[in-house]
Amino acid sequence: MTAIEYIQQNIDSLNWQRNPRGLYEPIEYTLQAGGKRLRPALAIMASDLFDGDRQKVLPAALALEIFHNFTLLHDDVMDNASIRRGRPTVHVRWNENTAILSGDQMLIEAYKLLSQVKPDRLPEVLYLFNKMATEICEGQQYDVEFENRDDVSLDDYLMMIRLKTSVLLATSLQIGALIAGAGQTAQLALYQYGINLGLAFQLQDDLLDVYGNPQTFGKAIGGDILCAKKTYLLLTAMLKADPQQKQQLSLLLADHSISDQQKIHAVTDIYNQLSVRQACEEVVKKYTLLALAELDKIPVSEEKKLILINLAQKLLARKE
Amino acid sequence: MTAIEYIQQNIDSLNWQRNPRGLYEPIEYTLQAGGKRLRPALAIMASDLFDGDRQKVLPAALALEIFHNFTLLHDDVMDNASIRRGRPTVHVRWNENTAILSGDQMLIEAYKLLSQVKPDRLPEVLYLFNKMATEICEGQQYDVEFENRDDVSLDDYLMMIRLKTSVLLATSLQIGALIAGAGQTAQLALYQYGINLGLAFQLQDDLLDVYGNPQTFGKAIGGDILCAKKTYLLLTAMLKADPQQKQQLSLLLADHSISDQQKIHAVTDIYNQLSVRQACEEVVKKYTLLALAELDKIPVSEEKKLILINLAQKLLARKE
Repeated sequence: MTAIEYIQQNIDSLNWQRNPRGLYEPIEYTLQAGGKRLRPALAIMASDLFDGDRQKVLPAALALEIFHNFTLLHDDVMDNASIRRGRPTVHVRWNENTAILSGDQMLIEAYKLLSQVKPDRLPEVLYLFNKMATEICEGQQYDVEFENRDDVSLDDYLMMIRLKTSVLLATSLQIGALIAGAGQTAQLALYQYGINLGLAFQLQDDLLDVYGNPQTFGKAIGGDILCAKKTYLLLTAMLKADPQQKQQLSLLLADHSISDQQKIHAVTDIYNQLSVRQACEEVVKKYTLLALAELDKIPVSEEKKLILINLAQKLLARKE
Repeated sequence: MTAIEYIQQNIDSLNWQRNPRGLYEPIEYTLQAGGKRLRPALAIMASDLFDGDRQKVLPAALALEIFHNFTLLHDDVMDNASIRRGRPTVHVRWNENTAILSGDQMLIEAYKLLSQVKPDRLPEVLYLFNKMATEICEGQQYDVEFENRDDVSLDDYLMMIRLKTSVLLATSLQIGALIAGAGQTAQLALYQYGINLGLAFQLQDDLLDVYGNPQTFGKAIGGDILCAKKTYLLLTAMLKADPQQKQQLSLLLADHSISDQQKIHAVTDIYNQLSVRQACEEVVKKYTLLALAELDKIPVSEEKKLILINLAQKLLARKE
């Protein structure tokens, strides 16, 4: 069974038939909405590398997935997002208070699963998990603050997406390896693989938001442009632009008199003049290669690493 | 040093000077607002009973206080409360998103402290903490649901306040005793002492909300009446009332044409006709005595128990 099938099966068999229903129903709704199950699958894949017992990693893997969904639930409240995975978000389907409280309970459920980790590994696993959870909150806070700051650098942006996206992938891999009994070198290599993979993944997302195929990309094209999000593309454009282009770009992003399509088209036009796409593609490639290089440090056969190699290459090539 | 002084000193020395400030400042603000520090003090008192090392209990005690403040922070958002301990609530001073995110981080901070518990006790402490945290979320959910239900019984209400208030006091005591090496019987007796103390405490709060001295009671008198909260007093009144009084009470509570003072006066008048005050005083006394009886099961000297005996008697006699 693949790691993802194994995880999916076990998420489906979690039992949320508890009272009060108003607390647990939104949790069930959130966890049944699907999603890639990437984080728990990474924990299992990391364990598989070392022939670990999947059942030993399972509680921590499920904790990572529930934690991830908790962050989405609360982020959706904060971002006032109304759709998630094709369905109304919890605060829309129920209300904001429900989203806050059921989200809190999901975080507690994650810790409940986590405490099922065998006692000899428990303190280390808790330490890694808590560090990651803190960094994700910090990343979310930076993301919010960057909206109102005019001095966000490319490094600031990379730091923010590292916190908001990468550390969860990295920690999932490290926890899987740790529980399977991997040594410190292998654990850290997997962590760094996850960090670089996460950066490549998020930057590819930024790219697809502008250059994706509307037919295959999950969301509407141009969303980041319309909300003037300081993505890698916009920050790079601002760096490369001459004073005139810079002013043009700023005016365009703040312009409420033109249509969405006009705005997306005009901004993309400037991006094209500045070869922003190529710059971003290069950096996606750079982080993908850095991720792959980390795998060389792990003392297991190439055959076993194939799934992680393929994952990185698939991310690089993805169009949606 | 008293347990409360010991706790206060250690809360003051927690360091929140971390970045991003927007995430940690509201946490510092919340924890510096004061409060009784009752929960961590109970953990220390329980440990003192068994001559436990206070430093060993400290991380868990601080975790319990931070957890308690996390629940207040998110409850204040859900209840749209604007004042807490004489200062603007976090969502008023900053905004709702900050209250959600800094609250989430407080819950994570609680778990960080908790994982400093010595590994041999860690799984048990985590189990008790997680069970308690779940029950508190369940209690909050019932509290919200009861607002829109017309069939809330006295037992329902007692179940709700047990979850929302008692289990945190009870678990604080049990965790303190557990870490200090107390046996199962003593742990459970302290847990039950905490459950009964919490019920007595909340019911006394319900009483003071109507019959407290406005000069010494912390909040305005009659708040529960104005929001028609289904407290022990109102539920008892509804049970004791004849059909005419029942209708009178329902109409009064829903009446928006009279002044707050008129409403409070008229409802209190019906409570007096029905001797609701005496009924509630009796049940406060009952739970206080049940709490005290639990202390008899603990195999330590009466002298050592004195602080817990006094605490229960002080709660019973309190006027604010």
